[in-house]
Amino acid sequence: MSFKVNKLVIIGAGLIGGSFALALKSAKAVKRVVGVGRSEKNLALARKLGIIDEASDAAGALAGANLVLIAVPVAQTQSVLASIVPHLEPETLITDAGSTKQDVVAAARHELGAHFPRFIPAHPIAGGEKSGAEAARADLFRGRNVVLTPLAETDRDALDRVREAWLAAGAKVRDMLPAEHDQVFAAVSHLPHALAYALVDCIAGKQNAKELFDFAAGGFRDFTRIAGSSPEMWRDICIANRNALLVELNDYQRKLAQLEHLIGERNAAALEQLFARARAAREKWISEREE
Amino acid sequence: MSFKVNKLVIIGAGLIGGSFALALKSAKAVKRVVGVGRSEKNLALARKLGIIDEASDAAGALAGANLVLIAVPVAQTQSVLASIVPHLEPETLITDAGSTKQDVVAAARHELGAHFPRFIPAHPIAGGEKSGAEAARADLFRGRNVVLTPLAETDRDALDRVREAWLAAGAKVRDMLPAEHDQVFAAVSHLPHALAYALVDCIAGKQNAKELFDFAAGGFRDFTRIAGSSPEMWRDICIANRNALLVELNDYQRKLAQLEHLIGERNAAALEQLFARARAAREKWISEREE
Repeated sequence: MSFKVNKLVIIGAGLIGGSFALALKSAKAVKRVVGVGRSEKNLALARKLGIIDEASDAAGALAGANLVLIAVPVAQTQSVLASIVPHLEPETLITDAGSTKQDVVAAARHELGAHFPRFIPAHPIAGGEKSGAEAARADLFRGRNVVLTPLAETDRDALDRVREAWLAAGAKVRDMLPAEHDQVFAAVSHLPHALAYALVDCIAGKQNAKELFDFAAGGFRDFTRIAGSSPEMWRDICIANRNALLVELNDYQRKLAQLEHLIGERNAAALEQLFARARAAREKWISEREE
Repeated sequence: MSFKVNKLVIIGAGLIGGSFALALKSAKAVKRVVGVGRSEKNLALARKLGIIDEASDAAGALAGANLVLIAVPVAQTQSVLASIVPHLEPETLITDAGSTKQDVVAAARHELGAHFPRFIPAHPIAGGEKSGAEAARADLFRGRNVVLTPLAETDRDALDRVREAWLAAGAKVRDMLPAEHDQVFAAVSHLPHALAYALVDCIAGKQNAKELFDFAAGGFRDFTRIAGSSPEMWRDICIANRNALLVELNDYQRKLAQLEHLIGERNAAALEQLFARARAAREKWISEREE
């Protein structure tokens, strides 16, 4: 770890931003952390918990900053970028933690101008049901994937340094193209969230909803667990990544039409084949997973 | 508990049949249990584990039997009924454990003739990932719902006695109409299973399936847990309950079309409303659940 951060700025001192600060502090990879955020209360708590050393506005925070992490809901990325641009020093590196990447890259390209090569888009695949500074922990990223989506314009030295910072936070760093990232997470994360919300809403809207929930059991509970996630966050993700998500949703709708056809014509052999193929693929995945 | 079973016959000495036998033994509600099944090995194990007192063919088992539990995959119910009819004594009560009820009722009506009033259709909402006699346990039904779907022709005394047997096994007994039962479980159980299999198969069929699984995380794992269930069992359930399942699948497809529309037109407010409504309904359900 050759990259030591003198001054780290976290914009959004919540679960992700706070955990990044704690992880770098724990790795002795940062000297000073400044927090920027909309909630005075959360910033005071972050300071009390030793996550940040001081709270500041953007102008004060960015003076002499080496690295800025933007860890806000993805729909706010563009306005945050616009608000920091006037205060950026030429050498300051920027990374983010948004769940979608093409829209973040477009926003950064639009807002950052000449500074764009020093913006390294990132998506840490980590989180939890709790949020805010109180949920932050130094080991949140340990062993977790962080996807970087550098571009042709990206400064290679800036990329190396931001990679080192995420590695210092304990993450496994993977590089992908922004479009590839958005397709992958549309398929394995955004679509399942949308499907779970849709099923619960479908059942809740039926005349006998009370009876239906009354007989729902453990399978239903696990299937719908992700429908307990933040509606605001997932609204933003679904809209930000709508192009990739709609492609995946269409593929899934075609699969359901196929299933409907097999059930309708009582094609037991093909139905069993589909179910067995799915089970085998899932078991292989489970057996190869590390956690 | 006024109904004591002198001789119980379990057809299928697996998880469900074996647990029923153990539960009644533990409640001292049965004197003798005879097992009937296709696997000599499983019957020998059931005997060794004290689940059954002897194994027999249908003719031997049914002589003097008070109660018969049919606990076989639902598609085999009709052939099992056909095989026991020649050996049934007039007073013998029959119940089952099938996950679908209209098809079981139709099969019983067709096969049992004059004995049909003494057949009490039942669906215990209990199970597990393991199967066979070794998975059976006396407390499997404790506090779990068992749905009975008696009919106009059902003998009231037979119904009372079978209800008492399930109560003695520790279950909470609920009565429903067969069609109502099949709609409820199509919505909260059969549809989610089909949706989970469909998602895994959809992803497994993509060109970059390996990369997709590589980035799938905890939300995906829980959402697809039920796609680890038995393909044979769920093939049978989907076909047996196809009419109700296709209605629920159509409702869900309409909900997905609505979701697709909202995402496509970037209707953030309506999307958040749908997600928030789903989350609230789920949280209410979770808070009211007993287990």
